[in-house]
Amino acid sequence: MGLLISGGTVVGPTGTHRADVLVEGETIAALFAPGRAPDGDHGTIDATGKYVIPGGVDVHTHMELPFGGTNASDTFDTGTRAAAYGGTTTIVDFAVQRTGEVVQDGLAAWHAKADDNCHVDYAFHMILGGVDDDALKAMDQLVADEGISSFKLFMAYPGVFYSDDGQILRAMQRARENGAMIMMHAENGIAIDVLVQQALARGDTDPIHHGLTRPAALEAEATHRAIRLAEVARDCPLYIVHLSASQALEQVAAARDAGRNVFAETCPQYLYLTLEDQLGAPGFEGAKWVCSTPLRSGRESHHRDLWQGLRSNDLAVVSTDHCPFCFKDQKELGLGDFSKIPNGIGGVEHRVDLLYQGVVDGKLTLERWVETIATTPARMFGLYPRKGILAPGSDADIVLYDPTGRTSIGVGTHHMNMDHSAYEGYEIAGRVDTVLSRGTVLLADGTYHGRRGHGRFLRRGLSTYLS
Amino acid sequence: MGLLISGGTVVGPTGTHRADVLVEGETIAALFAPGRAPDGDHGTIDATGKYVIPGGVDVHTHMELPFGGTNASDTFDTGTRAAAYGGTTTIVDFAVQRTGEVVQDGLAAWHAKADDNCHVDYAFHMILGGVDDDALKAMDQLVADEGISSFKLFMAYPGVFYSDDGQILRAMQRARENGAMIMMHAENGIAIDVLVQQALARGDTDPIHHGLTRPAALEAEATHRAIRLAEVARDCPLYIVHLSASQALEQVAAARDAGRNVFAETCPQYLYLTLEDQLGAPGFEGAKWVCSTPLRSGRESHHRDLWQGLRSNDLAVVSTDHCPFCFKDQKELGLGDFSKIPNGIGGVEHRVDLLYQGVVDGKLTLERWVETIATTPARMFGLYPRKGILAPGSDADIVLYDPTGRTSIGVGTHHMNMDHSAYEGYEIAGRVDTVLSRGTVLLADGTYHGRRGHGRFLRRGLSTYLS
Amino acid sequence: MGLLISGGTVVGPTGTHRADVLVEGETIAALFAPGRAPDGDHGTIDATGKYVIPGGVDVHTHMELPFGGTNASDTFDTGTRAAAYGGTTTIVDFAVQRTGEVVQDGLAAWHAKADDNCHVDYAFHMILGGVDDDALKAMDQLVADEGISSFKLFMAYPGVFYSDDGQILRAMQRARENGAMIMMHAENGIAIDVLVQQALARGDTDPIHHGLTRPAALEAEATHRAIRLAEVARDCPLYIVHLSASQALEQVAAARDAGRNVFAETCPQYLYLTLEDQLGAPGFEGAKWVCSTPLRSGRESHHRDLWQGLRSNDLAVVSTDHCPFCFKDQKELGLGDFSKIPNGIGGVEHRVDLLYQGVVDGKLTLERWVETIATTPARMFGLYPRKGILAPGSDADIVLYDPTGRTSIGVGTHHMNMDHSAYEGYEIAGRVDTVLSRGTVLLADGTYHGRRGHGRFLRRGLSTYLS
Amino acid sequence: MGLLISGGTVVGPTGTHRADVLVEGETIAALFAPGRAPDGDHGTIDATGKYVIPGGVDVHTHMELPFGGTNASDTFDTGTRAAAYGGTTTIVDFAVQRTGEVVQDGLAAWHAKADDNCHVDYAFHMILGGVDDDALKAMDQLVADEGISSFKLFMAYPGVFYSDDGQILRAMQRARENGAMIMMHAENGIAIDVLVQQALARGDTDPIHHGLTRPAALEAEATHRAIRLAEVARDCPLYIVHLSASQALEQVAAARDAGRNVFAETCPQYLYLTLEDQLGAPGFEGAKWVCSTPLRSGRESHHRDLWQGLRSNDLAVVSTDHCPFCFKDQKELGLGDFSKIPNGIGGVEHRVDLLYQGVVDGKLTLERWVETIATTPARMFGLYPRKGILAPGSDADIVLYDPTGRTSIGVGTHHMNMDHSAYEGYEIAGRVDTVLSRGTVLLADGTYHGRRGHGRFLRRGLSTYLS
Repeated sequence: MGLLISGGTVVGPTGTHRADVLVEGETIAALFAPGRAPDGDHGTIDATGKYVIPGGVDVHTHMELPFGGTNASDTFDTGTRAAAYGGTTTIVDFAVQRTGEVVQDGLAAWHAKADDNCHVDYAFHMILGGVDDDALKAMDQLVADEGISSFKLFMAYPGVFYSDDGQILRAMQRARENGAMIMMHAENGIAIDVLVQQALARGDTDPIHHGLTRPAALEAEATHRAIRLAEVARDCPLYIVHLSASQALEQVAAARDAGRNVFAETCPQYLYLTLEDQLGAPGFEGAKWVCSTPLRSGRESHHRDLWQGLRSNDLAVVSTDHCPFCFKDQKELGLGDFSKIPNGIGGVEHRVDLLYQGVVDGKLTLERWVETIATTPARMFGLYPRKGILAPGSDADIVLYDPTGRTSIGVGTHHMNMDHSAYEGYEIAGRVDTVLSRGTVLLADGTYHGRRGHGRFLRRGLSTYLS
Repeated sequence: MGLLISGGTVVGPTGTHRADVLVEGETIAALFAPGRAPDGDHGTIDATGKYVIPGGVDVHTHMELPFGGTNASDTFDTGTRAAAYGGTTTIVDFAVQRTGEVVQDGLAAWHAKADDNCHVDYAFHMILGGVDDDALKAMDQLVADEGISSFKLFMAYPGVFYSDDGQILRAMQRARENGAMIMMHAENGIAIDVLVQQALARGDTDPIHHGLTRPAALEAEATHRAIRLAEVARDCPLYIVHLSASQALEQVAAARDAGRNVFAETCPQYLYLTLEDQLGAPGFEGAKWVCSTPLRSGRESHHRDLWQGLRSNDLAVVSTDHCPFCFKDQKELGLGDFSKIPNGIGGVEHRVDLLYQGVVDGKLTLERWVETIATTPARMFGLYPRKGILAPGSDADIVLYDPTGRTSIGVGTHHMNMDHSAYEGYEIAGRVDTVLSRGTVLLADGTYHGRRGHGRFLRRGLSTYLS
Repeated sequence: MGLLISGGTVVGPTGTHRADVLVEGETIAALFAPGRAPDGDHGTIDATGKYVIPGGVDVHTHMELPFGGTNASDTFDTGTRAAAYGGTTTIVDFAVQRTGEVVQDGLAAWHAKADDNCHVDYAFHMILGGVDDDALKAMDQLVADEGISSFKLFMAYPGVFYSDDGQILRAMQRARENGAMIMMHAENGIAIDVLVQQALARGDTDPIHHGLTRPAALEAEATHRAIRLAEVARDCPLYIVHLSASQALEQVAAARDAGRNVFAETCPQYLYLTLEDQLGAPGFEGAKWVCSTPLRSGRESHHRDLWQGLRSNDLAVVSTDHCPFCFKDQKELGLGDFSKIPNGIGGVEHRVDLLYQGVVDGKLTLERWVETIATTPARMFGLYPRKGILAPGSDADIVLYDPTGRTSIGVGTHHMNMDHSAYEGYEIAGRVDTVLSRGTVLLADGTYHGRRGHGRFLRRGLSTYLS
Repeated sequence: MGLLISGGTVVGPTGTHRADVLVEGETIAALFAPGRAPDGDHGTIDATGKYVIPGGVDVHTHMELPFGGTNASDTFDTGTRAAAYGGTTTIVDFAVQRTGEVVQDGLAAWHAKADDNCHVDYAFHMILGGVDDDALKAMDQLVADEGISSFKLFMAYPGVFYSDDGQILRAMQRARENGAMIMMHAENGIAIDVLVQQALARGDTDPIHHGLTRPAALEAEATHRAIRLAEVARDCPLYIVHLSASQALEQVAAARDAGRNVFAETCPQYLYLTLEDQLGAPGFEGAKWVCSTPLRSGRESHHRDLWQGLRSNDLAVVSTDHCPFCFKDQKELGLGDFSKIPNGIGGVEHRVDLLYQGVVDGKLTLERWVETIATTPARMFGLYPRKGILAPGSDADIVLYDPTGRTSIGVGTHHMNMDHSAYEGYEIAGRVDTVLSRGTVLLADGTYHGRRGHGRFLRRGLSTYLS
């Protein structure tokens, strides 16, 4: 007894072909050339005219993250349900070790939040709130025993998540030994804090000053610094999160030309939104778009350069950095002081669509769309070939995507727990038609069939993306 | 009635997975998760412990090429048989329009040489011996009607294949319109000829002077020039053949960082052999390794940089530039005058093995091995997904590769029609175990079952590798 | 008996200081600290409030150049008189060997034009209209005997001045031996001619198409090519003339970062004028600004980048490429066909002022102003310390520059033999107050005292600017 | 009554010319063309066959610096006397504000050490041991009132001189306003300290580990970071001290290509000595060469690249970073623990000679020699035209340099207060023949005539080297 997805065009990271996909249980049992599938004891889904793609893998989310005195507004329940609606069937969220906390306790707390609550499969990276001998030992244990093979450090947020360069170096050295990936929030938070205090002292308190006090030069600086520290750590693999600035991209490109295992992701907000148009919206409205790294100026070439980086693979992954806060009561914590606005944009639901729009606009090929939203993230973080590819034996996480459909984005239609949308009013080409997670249909014919608790924790292996 | 290849590890361009491959007729009917293939009316090949990979695609061969008053010593018969032995199941050879000849006549002559003679499937690029209005029209016709979607021009060999920059620009403009790929032999032949004449005038006639008169700077120069001309032709796709020098690679990398559709291949000889050790062999022996672009100095970082370029995808493809000449009577035409030595190295049989050695040496991942020898060449030149991938519906060109095997290279064992080997005495890891072409077993258990005439001409579409 | 220039501020290439300059005969006899000059048997010029600078050295002029069926409209008489008015006391003009002509005959013809006709001192570069064995020998002879130590080649103008890459390489090799400088018109004329023919065939005949058919990419291409050929010629010194495009500047900067003896000049027209505003003027008016390399688009960053290049010394020299043609009857030769418009802009009179405007605008320091218009050109072309510096023993070529003055540019006031001005209506800061050439006052108190025949031919030595 | 230096060849930053220099009192009264000096009431020095150059300006010395529990072994007396012997007539030493100290108190302490003790003129930079509101105010006061226009910060030495990026940014912002230059010790000391602790923990205690724990990547990192912070401070002028690594030079070159006011110095030790040969000398002897930044590996291209940087002006200045410690009792403090070895090499006496050796070796032109050791340092730090140039009115700091002489370097002949020499046994071309400071002959005919207390404090203005 199975389910045959027939008549569609399978889109993979290296091209498209016509094939029928047979799902049995939770996995893909077989792929058939058209007409070669046996008649048999299985249901069928007609995928004619649809793209059949691996379910999206969003490797950067922050469900229920405590930040700035409040919590990200999506729970693992609401957030993964929204992800499912948007064609994303795997998330990798960031478990947090608060400074002073035992790493494993932080992990356990995250399991407590997520377990039995997710609609799609999930895994964790670990944020290290401090790097000391215990944390280094914990890294080994998490890699070996807990299915956690990536650790995030912050060059920003002094006093909160910040690690100094010595701590970073030690963590990188350890990762070089145990095979883990170091993920980096690359902004020079020490210098930024000076600019922030100066802005506030001048009375520049509006949301746009969040962006103006985080100049691109300080993202480029930290990116270069992280790359050099990784070099000193005998080429520890390094993954730059939420890259937003052309100048930072240049640093990544240079490292990659030099053959280093340096990778970067960007997010849809950096491909579509700008400092002036969104963060600079009148009054306090710009608070909706306060996130770090910040939106960049539309007067510069960041959008163009980031799309190009996606084409050239200097940007390997598109994630969302989904970190939603409601405007009311949450973003409003920063009324009169931009530095108190919780940082984050919600978008876990829209990544697949927003990137498909790039395909329609001629900025990305179909193959590259699938590669950046599913295949590479899965390879990068040790989930391949279970996720990220439609291969025999892979989890049956499958999306049928309708290229003739249309998607409207807005608070009236989205499923994230947010009282606003970063992309309100966007009408874009393409539509998520059908979503399967481990063989279960979550979405079909406009009806949601998923359920809380369906999603399981994924123990990840080491990255298979290294050269 | 089919054939099931079971128990192997399928290696694709993005990773490995366990799967059984069902071949029916000439194509792949299905891929099954382990244990999911139905018992049935099919034979089996036990692939346990083997890598199952798409047959190699060598997009740069010169069978029977007239050059320097003689002909390349492999016919389409002997050359494609050797290719099959080495795990290459598709070649793209260069049909030649001699200067003054009607393009279609040149193509017809090549068909006459190849048709009914090949052991594996074959396609043609077209060398344009001159670019004029007729040639431009012929480009359109070949793309539209003849399955020829790539055209090679030469910045070297004045008086033979050389095109000037105006001709190149016109061909690029036309390619930009009809979707074809321009392939470029990028060496400044005008300047090189001065150096050659000066060397001969000085009495520097030994083979090593072939290399010394073709400095890396002049490969870099021509590479940059081709890239700029393609830019002027509104970003005509450009593919640099047989890139050998770090300095040329830098030019390609810079163009790719800038988002251009610029690609390059290298060849095994540039990854393993050097100017000093081979081209500078005592007496006239170096003639064996006279090829253009030449082998580069081992005192410089070319080998290291080219391997790195393969990892970073600034080098997208490994081809052989297979252009064999026997030492006796052929290479010897240049005794006393290196400029009369026929240019070329034979290697169509060894590419898959020599690159697998790179995997063993830690220079390339398994995935990247398959991608550079099969998947990308197929995508680059409009053969995907028919070739280059193991997908349902693809041609059943399949190689079982034994990672525990060993391969000895030398004139005593190779199958190319050459009286010497460029890699004589190499003992390398890995071995081609079994080869299928369009469902037919060509090689198994050490026995060759292929036959002349099995190989068919492939009408190619446009490249699907462009961004 | 002498002349003391007292009370002024001497501006040299490394800074300013107060000093009095004593001229005796044709040279500078001494420089005194303020108040230290002896009372004596000399006249005085009060330079209080003035900058005292070495007379300008314009190393790129084309007096009476035959081009496009007409002759540049300034004779050595009118052109050097205009130069004197503008504070330029030395020109280096281009003697021309027409293709097929004996080099020395071309030189003799230029002497015939210039001798006894110049108001200021003059020297010659030699344009080689072809590079063959005779020309190479002539290079040696000109360097050794004729005071000609620089040779210009053209990568543009096929059929007129064009040299192919082999000829260029041979000339560079010879220059490497005899110490001469190779000057290069770096545009890919072969490719440009294709674009020109295509434009004309489309009916795009207006002057702006002169610029559109000479894209920046083809200047960058030729610049890179020249640099690589010089590298092959064992680092022959190379000087790129009239650099106009950011992309070409990048090539020069890269070569200089790599330590090569590669230099470049730009001209005022490339610092102030644009493709759209001037070359694209309505109707045929744009013909006034037809020159090669062409004016570049104001929508791009060329102006900003060239000023920056002057600051960073990637651009070492400002010359004028003075090559005037009257609009009536001369520029009009290209009515209906931009390719027939004589190429050239006149500006020998305005260089010193236009660059001083850069000082006023904060784009250049005073020191750098003097260095780029006088000191470096003199060093570059073997005239230092006779010209380009105010040192004891130097020729007394001295300009008093009034920073409080104003200069109006236009056909009504200029002294060049042109019926229009490229800078009509410019009102700029600063004014040439007094001009001495070899101790003779040419201009003072608004009155011209110079005379035809005062200027002498300068036998130049080798460049002293090489590293 | 004066002194005429006649018959010599004056070497200036843009070239050489024959001139006689008349000294009256403390300054240069006049320069005369040969034969033009009046007979008169003055003595003469015959400079025939000698180069006449401005006295050397060494802008990086540390006399009597307390460091690592001891003091640099040269006092202002012994150190400036040695400088005079070596042709250096101006030093700029680093006054130190210790952390917590009032800036002006630190300056006063330095005046107390230097005043009435120096043989040649001296000025001070100020080291800021911490950046707070008081220090920022002190910067303004020192610039306005004290003749101190440059401030040094450290990215290394946490707990001693280290400033964090926020402090650096604030100091740069202030410098941007008051016109001062920020000087930077660019090494990532936080990361280095981790490497140092790891090395010591491994038992790697020999001097060579001083170098191995300070990798070039961490100099490049800090250099880039400083450049970016200066960019954020709206292009505050930045001067990188003691640049030693190719990778750091690349960062400076890139910033300069981009038009920024970023400058760098190197020191003779980085041009001649290596990690392996000196720092890696057997036993503890390498301690003699422990300095930071460290000597770099001779297996890499640092020496070649730094010479090239001097030619291209990406390195603008050669200073010594003179910071001598005796081997006995001082360097020996680090026996068994390289991290306790006082950092520093003494060389104030040898800079002029060691760089002249570069002229002899063809690595530097005569002009560039003078420019890097005298003219540019004077311009860079607000001493021009008083120092650094032979111009009327300049201080009569003059060196006669004998190109036919020879100089032997070693502890037996040098005048620095050191019990060893970093260049022991060097026999080099050229010799300091005669030295004048402000018109007084300090050295002539092998006899020293100088005296302690002759040197005066120089109040410096702002840099005149900015673009």
